[in-house]
Amino acid sequence: MSSFGLGLRLSKVTVELAAGIARRNQTVKSGAVSLACSRLQHVDQSQSLHTLSAHTPARSRSRLLQEYNNTSCNLVNFVRNMSAETLPDPSNLIFRQLFDYQSYTYTYLLADKDTKDAILIDPVIELVKRDLHLVEDLGLNLIYAVNTHCHADHITGSGLLKEKLPNCKSIISGNSGAKADLYIDEGDQIKFGNLALEVLSTPGHTSGCVTYVLRNETGTPVIAFTGDAILIRGCGRTDFQEGDSGMLYDNVHGKILSLPPTTRLMPAHDYTGQTVTTVKEELQFNPRLTKTKEEFIKIMQELNLPYQKR
Amino acid sequence: MSSFGLGLRLSKVTVELAAGIARRNQTVKSGAVSLACSRLQHVDQSQSLHTLSAHTPARSRSRLLQEYNNTSCNLVNFVRNMSAETLPDPSNLIFRQLFDYQSYTYTYLLADKDTKDAILIDPVIELVKRDLHLVEDLGLNLIYAVNTHCHADHITGSGLLKEKLPNCKSIISGNSGAKADLYIDEGDQIKFGNLALEVLSTPGHTSGCVTYVLRNETGTPVIAFTGDAILIRGCGRTDFQEGDSGMLYDNVHGKILSLPPTTRLMPAHDYTGQTVTTVKEELQFNPRLTKTKEEFIKIMQELNLPYQKR
Repeated sequence: MSSFGLGLRLSKVTVELAAGIARRNQTVKSGAVSLACSRLQHVDQSQSLHTLSAHTPARSRSRLLQEYNNTSCNLVNFVRNMSAETLPDPSNLIFRQLFDYQSYTYTYLLADKDTKDAILIDPVIELVKRDLHLVEDLGLNLIYAVNTHCHADHITGSGLLKEKLPNCKSIISGNSGAKADLYIDEGDQIKFGNLALEVLSTPGHTSGCVTYVLRNETGTPVIAFTGDAILIRGCGRTDFQEGDSGMLYDNVHGKILSLPPTTRLMPAHDYTGQTVTTVKEELQFNPRLTKTKEEFIKIMQELNLPYQKR
Repeated sequence: MSSFGLGLRLSKVTVELAAGIARRNQTVKSGAVSLACSRLQHVDQSQSLHTLSAHTPARSRSRLLQEYNNTSCNLVNFVRNMSAETLPDPSNLIFRQLFDYQSYTYTYLLADKDTKDAILIDPVIELVKRDLHLVEDLGLNLIYAVNTHCHADHITGSGLLKEKLPNCKSIISGNSGAKADLYIDEGDQIKFGNLALEVLSTPGHTSGCVTYVLRNETGTPVIAFTGDAILIRGCGRTDFQEGDSGMLYDNVHGKILSLPPTTRLMPAHDYTGQTVTTVKEELQFNPRLTKTKEEFIKIMQELNLPYQKR
């Protein structure tokens, strides 16, 4: 990006921030906003950084640097976020978390704000109409129906989505044994617009379970869609035919809980009304996965869960 | 903030971004990250912007501006977000959306990352144990139990929260007729740490309905907690004693849908498995509130809804 381009951007920021101050002075009294505004008091909208040149007097230059400081709230926030609980999403991400009250399944809609290319993770057949309505409202182009695994508790919406949108392709792990247009495995990428999900193979609940990782512009993972591998303060059952507690433990610890502690974990299900957790939280508070591998295997053996209705 | 302070921050960003590139080169291939990395290829970690002075030769100065461009991904993203669907939350916000499967109520946990002061919006009595567990896990200090209005469909958790945490105060509108420690009205602030919610009086569903607005560091509204005033593609019923369709229409349009189109709207309820909407979306797609006031009043009169179980 040219410094001129940046200059234009800085001017826009300056105007926006000045507008922010105006609004602030009318109403907002919070410490955070006061802090932001105290950084902005000296912003001079008549100048922006791209005007800096060899001919700029030292005084103006220092004022321009002061302006740079003043207009850099978000750069500062970015640094503050380096130690935050979570990191911001990629700036071109459109994201929606959707829920099925029947099977307690989370479906995730992700899209590139610029290209409008969209994907649905773990759609539920009964809710395809709702999901397509939202896709249409947001003006998105759904290109993939992506599954984290072959679900025992609900029927995927992939097939119905493909019927309604012939250009939409279904995706699942090659190890799932399920039928799809595209099969993915460890290290693969699912690209939508200028965004992509990376595939981590995380079997243990089923043989074909995968986790999808979204990174921000700096390459740092920000969200992992974990399917049933790890749930909020829980994990997927391992007593089905393809279940393997030891394998689940190794994959969750080796691939998911080894992501940065700030990584948000968004599972395929929750039964407690929670919507998200983080690697840091599950490393501290997951009642099963904080145990040793041997203890974990014993816990999973002794769950004696009822079989799913569906 | 001093330019030296900024320099330190820039150096940290540079290191982080370089680390980002390293990770990126191992694994990530998405267009977005490629774009980010192409901006970063020329970053020189030995210099940062605060070293720029009257003695800096023009060539170095232009290289430093190039470095500034390269290390400013997030400032660029910030500018891109000016035209985005939604804006990032304040960087010091901890945020959780929680749900009650019985009354379809959303409870929101907000906290200041730095001070750990926290508030709960619309807690549900049956789920106080869950909410307190999360507050404890996140190491937060719950100072307020905040209600958007007096609910007909569930009992607030405020009382039980105050029993469990004697220092926690309950908050509701003075017009609600309900009992609380603190009564708020239009223009008031609910401060927690360095963050604050602003109160907008938005009656119509009940006389005491309020909307709470959270702004980011620039003073721009990013989230409005709308209670039952506006729901995702819907709105609260107006056939109870305190209901007034015309008043609801005027308040929703005059105070909520007049916020920036990027403002996320987070209601007290949803019955379709959706978690969030935006001002822009509801202005386009709300089946009731896109109508004229007269049409809206007629629609609300003819809903003939069953009375709530609770």
